[in-house]
Amino acid sequence: MGQVVALTGQVGGAKLVDGLYRLRGKDLAAVVNTGDDYEHLTLSFSPDIDTVLYVLAGIASAAAPWEPAGESHALFATLKAFGGPDRLALGDRALAAPLLRSAWLAEGRRLTEITLDFCRQLGIGARVLPMSDDQVRTHVLTEDGAVTFQEYFTTLACEPAVRGFQYAGADAAMLTPEVSNVLDAEDLEAVVICPANPYHTIRPILEVPGMRELLRKRGAPVIAVTPIVGGKALKGSAGKMMRELRHEASARRVALEYLRLIDGFVIDAEDAASAEDVRASGIEVLVANTVMRTLEDRSALARAVLAFAQTIRDRRLQEA
Amino acid sequence: MGQVVALTGQVGGAKLVDGLYRLRGKDLAAVVNTGDDYEHLTLSFSPDIDTVLYVLAGIASAAAPWEPAGESHALFATLKAFGGPDRLALGDRALAAPLLRSAWLAEGRRLTEITLDFCRQLGIGARVLPMSDDQVRTHVLTEDGAVTFQEYFTTLACEPAVRGFQYAGADAAMLTPEVSNVLDAEDLEAVVICPANPYHTIRPILEVPGMRELLRKRGAPVIAVTPIVGGKALKGSAGKMMRELRHEASARRVALEYLRLIDGFVIDAEDAASAEDVRASGIEVLVANTVMRTLEDRSALARAVLAFAQTIRDRRLQEA
Repeated sequence: MGQVVALTGQVGGAKLVDGLYRLRGKDLAAVVNTGDDYEHLTLSFSPDIDTVLYVLAGIASAAAPWEPAGESHALFATLKAFGGPDRLALGDRALAAPLLRSAWLAEGRRLTEITLDFCRQLGIGARVLPMSDDQVRTHVLTEDGAVTFQEYFTTLACEPAVRGFQYAGADAAMLTPEVSNVLDAEDLEAVVICPANPYHTIRPILEVPGMRELLRKRGAPVIAVTPIVGGKALKGSAGKMMRELRHEASARRVALEYLRLIDGFVIDAEDAASAEDVRASGIEVLVANTVMRTLEDRSALARAVLAFAQTIRDRRLQEA
Repeated sequence: MGQVVALTGQVGGAKLVDGLYRLRGKDLAAVVNTGDDYEHLTLSFSPDIDTVLYVLAGIASAAAPWEPAGESHALFATLKAFGGPDRLALGDRALAAPLLRSAWLAEGRRLTEITLDFCRQLGIGARVLPMSDDQVRTHVLTEDGAVTFQEYFTTLACEPAVRGFQYAGADAAMLTPEVSNVLDAEDLEAVVICPANPYHTIRPILEVPGMRELLRKRGAPVIAVTPIVGGKALKGSAGKMMRELRHEASARRVALEYLRLIDGFVIDAEDAASAEDVRASGIEVLVANTVMRTLEDRSALARAVLAFAQTIRDRRLQEA
């Protein structure tokens, strides 16, 4: 068995990474979106990275995997008493990684080094890699103007209609040696695009110059898993965004977002009827249970995705 | 009744400020040592300011007034799991003020403005004022070399013998308009030097250029309260430091540290025998119970100190 690389972010993405990690351990690398990162109270928040870390370390809250289990809000209560901002509830445990990250960034360390250090400390065998060490900030272009994703998500509660996205800083962002190495591995077996918002979670990763080429460099199958089931996002606002962008809110439409990048697409059994439409675009399709309610669901989906990649590799060998 | 200004820091200092506050409310200003301030994990810690704020706001722990009551350590436990430094235990609640302070300082606000804002938010009627907005850092010159007070206090656990002190930055530190205003008040009634370490708590305040002159400008009695009772500091290492500096560890010796600055000195009943020695230096002496175990002890000592100042004023009027 070779190396597996996952592109990921959000809760669904972290869950599939966890499934892949349970199967592959140290042979897994997760390339994580940092376009939703933000600064608050001088601290550097990387929500997608931290969610993956909590989940892989087994310390994530089951109900809210973006924070550690047993979260408390003592600091935040005191912060409010001192006149601090109250719009973003800060958990005590969830502040630890941003605090340490900020301190280490201030010492001149790279975000990648810091994140790999977190993995070692937490006993995570897989490599969790930021998509870049350079700052990329996803801006949501709404009917009321452009805002950062954080403002859209927290202050605006995802309400204004979305007209488009911009990835500020992406033009100048560099691939890291670590991301280049994992995607250039001779034994790269599959690239998995996890179920996550295609616009503000997966797309920023693809916007790092050279990333698309690197994903296809070794010729390993690139497989995406739908974040849309039955016309709705399981979590988050992907469905709403798709409708506002005047797209059909469907798994089929997500596949089109990845056209010319992916070899295979995994849709939910509920959307089995659209398999043929996707195949007509030249993309192979696997119908599977994509809704991960239990830990076993995560492993089962990961197993199905990797078997699907194997099928694609086998067919290519036969055709060659 | 006029204005009262206290010079303060440490737990004993905060307790007497609390007693004065209970008597005088908004007619009290506390000028607080910032020489023990430090940066940790990019945050700006001001331990003496925060202790005064917690005590005056009524949110201090009774057993450990340098932190809010009911302190927890969830963030710190997570920080350690992520590989963060473990030598300084950080409480969840006690991190709020440093976090907010750092963020507001980064916005270009002055430490004084921030501290007064904290007072308003916490419902503290008195003015808590940093001794300066400029950075002063007390260094302890030990037999093993010079270290910051924080290193001496935490890393070295106050162990190396002390040979002297330096107040880095004091030469260039400026008086703030707020400190100048409270000490230049026409109705200034008394200046109280609270019971606290004379070397690293009170002295840094006095090292701000212009401070000594300002303390005497209006001619209000300047009264110091001993931090040494029966040859020992109630809290902290004042007694140990005095012996290492080859001074007698005594209330009498503390009075000499304030020679030509103070009009009156308050010693504990336990040290009543040394009253005559202090009087021989031209300093008036009050013998009182200086050990503040209860809230009533704080008010009683504050009442005694202010009555002592009144006596000195009355005598001056008679002599004039």
